[in-house]
Amino acid sequence: MPVAQETEVWQKQTNELKKFLAIGDAKAFRSTFLELHNWEQAQFFLSLDQTERLALYNTLTTKEVGDLFDDIDDDQVQIPDFLSEMEPSYAAEMLTEMYTDNAVDILEHLDKATVQRLLARMPHKTAAEMRTLLHYGDETAGAIMTTEYITIVAKQTVASAMAALRAEADEAELIYYVYVLDNDHHLAGIISLRDLIVNDQAAMINDIMNERVISVQVTDDQEAVAQTIRDYNFLAIPVTDPSNHLLGIITVDDVIDVIDDEAAADYSGLAGVDVEAKLESPLKSALKRLPWLITLLFLGMSTASLISHYENLVSEASVLAVFISLITGTAGNAGTQSLAVAVRRLAFKNEQTSLLRTLVVELITGLMIGVVTGLTITVVVGLWKHTFVLGFVIGLAMCCAIIVANLAGSFIPSLMERLGFDPAVASGPFISTLSDLTSVLIYFSIAQYFMPFFINK
Amino acid sequence: MPVAQETEVWQKQTNELKKFLAIGDAKAFRSTFLELHNWEQAQFFLSLDQTERLALYNTLTTKEVGDLFDDIDDDQVQIPDFLSEMEPSYAAEMLTEMYTDNAVDILEHLDKATVQRLLARMPHKTAAEMRTLLHYGDETAGAIMTTEYITIVAKQTVASAMAALRAEADEAELIYYVYVLDNDHHLAGIISLRDLIVNDQAAMINDIMNERVISVQVTDDQEAVAQTIRDYNFLAIPVTDPSNHLLGIITVDDVIDVIDDEAAADYSGLAGVDVEAKLESPLKSALKRLPWLITLLFLGMSTASLISHYENLVSEASVLAVFISLITGTAGNAGTQSLAVAVRRLAFKNEQTSLLRTLVVELITGLMIGVVTGLTITVVVGLWKHTFVLGFVIGLAMCCAIIVANLAGSFIPSLMERLGFDPAVASGPFISTLSDLTSVLIYFSIAQYFMPFFINK
Repeated sequence: MPVAQETEVWQKQTNELKKFLAIGDAKAFRSTFLELHNWEQAQFFLSLDQTERLALYNTLTTKEVGDLFDDIDDDQVQIPDFLSEMEPSYAAEMLTEMYTDNAVDILEHLDKATVQRLLARMPHKTAAEMRTLLHYGDETAGAIMTTEYITIVAKQTVASAMAALRAEADEAELIYYVYVLDNDHHLAGIISLRDLIVNDQAAMINDIMNERVISVQVTDDQEAVAQTIRDYNFLAIPVTDPSNHLLGIITVDDVIDVIDDEAAADYSGLAGVDVEAKLESPLKSALKRLPWLITLLFLGMSTASLISHYENLVSEASVLAVFISLITGTAGNAGTQSLAVAVRRLAFKNEQTSLLRTLVVELITGLMIGVVTGLTITVVVGLWKHTFVLGFVIGLAMCCAIIVANLAGSFIPSLMERLGFDPAVASGPFISTLSDLTSVLIYFSIAQYFMPFFINK
Repeated sequence: MPVAQETEVWQKQTNELKKFLAIGDAKAFRSTFLELHNWEQAQFFLSLDQTERLALYNTLTTKEVGDLFDDIDDDQVQIPDFLSEMEPSYAAEMLTEMYTDNAVDILEHLDKATVQRLLARMPHKTAAEMRTLLHYGDETAGAIMTTEYITIVAKQTVASAMAALRAEADEAELIYYVYVLDNDHHLAGIISLRDLIVNDQAAMINDIMNERVISVQVTDDQEAVAQTIRDYNFLAIPVTDPSNHLLGIITVDDVIDVIDDEAAADYSGLAGVDVEAKLESPLKSALKRLPWLITLLFLGMSTASLISHYENLVSEASVLAVFISLITGTAGNAGTQSLAVAVRRLAFKNEQTSLLRTLVVELITGLMIGVVTGLTITVVVGLWKHTFVLGFVIGLAMCCAIIVANLAGSFIPSLMERLGFDPAVASGPFISTLSDLTSVLIYFSIAQYFMPFFINK
């Protein structure tokens, strides 16, 4: 069956489910609804109005609603509204039933008073666990890990480990890796369910477990965690503190969200706009894009006032105006390319390249690009305007402007990172607007110097 | 343990392993090497020179080398060299031992004659399977699926299914989902290992299996497959033909690679350069970036020649030159934003928005942005140059240029997609260079019309 959402069947089923809710036929609703995958349940839920949602809360158990909330995207802006329309004790119970990492994602989007109110209504142990998770820094391993994993001890047979696994399976988010702990809750080994299945049931865990456990630290950046899971092709990775106590695990589905979010952030940064995949209202789009545009407009004003400074030069040789946009445009393009490469390289933390080396490489690259582009334009302009002096001025200016734009494009993201910002906030539009300024300065300085040679055009 | 590669321990171990290879101590080499995770083995392998690699082939079995090749990134350019330095029969045997999808990824990067030579040396069944997989279109579900999955029939108990699973586990890439087939190889249901474990061993598969199987078609785009796995949080998804015969499965690790590749392609497109995470030599970088830059340079020349056409206007009112870069720059920025949004929206196939609706939304967005930005600059220029006529000319030109750039930014990627190209090839630099041309045309047309009113500045 293809993805349900697209089909007419889905449309029909949705309408039917809504009808059941409206007429209060709980039995019919439950029998159809609980057949759906959790993600489909979530999609259905998101299509309801408030009256329908209230009817749904009454028809389903907190566990069943928790299951669908596990599959609602955590950047869904309506979540706080959903929680506030539930009875507080119902909301607390539902959050308790959810996987801890997902519940914590939701709590992070609520105001502090509401969080306290909800935690107060949870079982003591769950509330304590969530409080701990809420304390981990944003975008760290701690913030995305879950505490629902299966642990066993090493001195037992596969058969007894399987029994332990069966007993705990209901609570765990992932049962395909089992973590082996010693007496002090240190992570001593790991064994996959695959190994438990294929090995002799009488074999001892400590003989077959993998002791070379790859783990991440609770304070590690989520991007580094994603990189490790991707490299090793794991389904999950354990998270430990510096003394190797097991604190939680991070599953591959959360890592996919991290990869997605980071890619979207890099992409949005390059474009100078927070890109959303959904079609938004024009007003919302405009409000999102205007701040950057207006900021850059004022940066652009300094370029304009610089040109204004050279207005006399332009009125003497109006041909200079002809090439302003060509030089600023080409340098801006080169700067954007170098920016994109720099941002992407910074995203891959395991490539440890020194800033100096990057700058040297980018300088030489810029030099090569500048010389080739400069020579090309020298010839083209020389032939077109029948003066190779002018061609040379344009070519030299373009070459210098490209080198400067290239350096800015690669240096600024590194600088941002060193100052503790996300390098992706150095946007493409920012670099090209900045490069307009330097390009114009370079262009008119060179033109002024060579003025005497081509004024008699 | 943190990721091995970064630690000194790793460096020491690598050196030790190389020493074992050099002195030909196969036993010592094997006992250390086979303790490593496959990905680490792959990293070690990639650090070897040819002599060392040849020694390694002699020391390890084809299965062991196949395991590490499973974890070499398929865009690793050296792979064809590795295969050509192996004995052909060794290479064929190694590919046979690998997971089919990974082996096919490698074959896709070899020339046809080599592929035929290798297939001829494989067992008949494997070669036939690989030939089929090689025929699926690039970037489709068929191209990334594997044929190593576990199937059972419905009319048996959990206990007998578990026995079947144990027997097949060694060959399968993923054993955590088991696919239930009917007599005609139709996909009739799916059951997770989790369900097999927690259910009563005497339960019948057809009572507990999930019959609402979410699957993808073999011709589906890989991006749509990735979206489905991500939405449903699956570890794998079955691939079927239109008659619902099971052809293969796609696992979550391959989906992560797809998400990565697509994100990198969108990102590279926006920047107008094929972005690689690794630091490349300046020459290589320059050669990669120059083609676009030179192409755009010639597009930029048409802007220059358009300005040249208006040179008399500029020499009469040199103040016009002051605002060229401000108008082209701002319109270019707006166009880049709208381009980024359009490309990203096209990437999410499940959002079915008509082109017309997108354009209308983008037109209204452009209008709002244009009016706000235009009014701002009218006031600023009016105050600065003490002439609100000039301010109005700049403001009006900027407003129109932004609207046009916005439309181009959202229309061109859609056009590309309709013509069968990847919308991401419409790069940011291309849109801003194109928008330079239209902006200059709009600017000077408006300026010429209003010329009489501000020439007496």
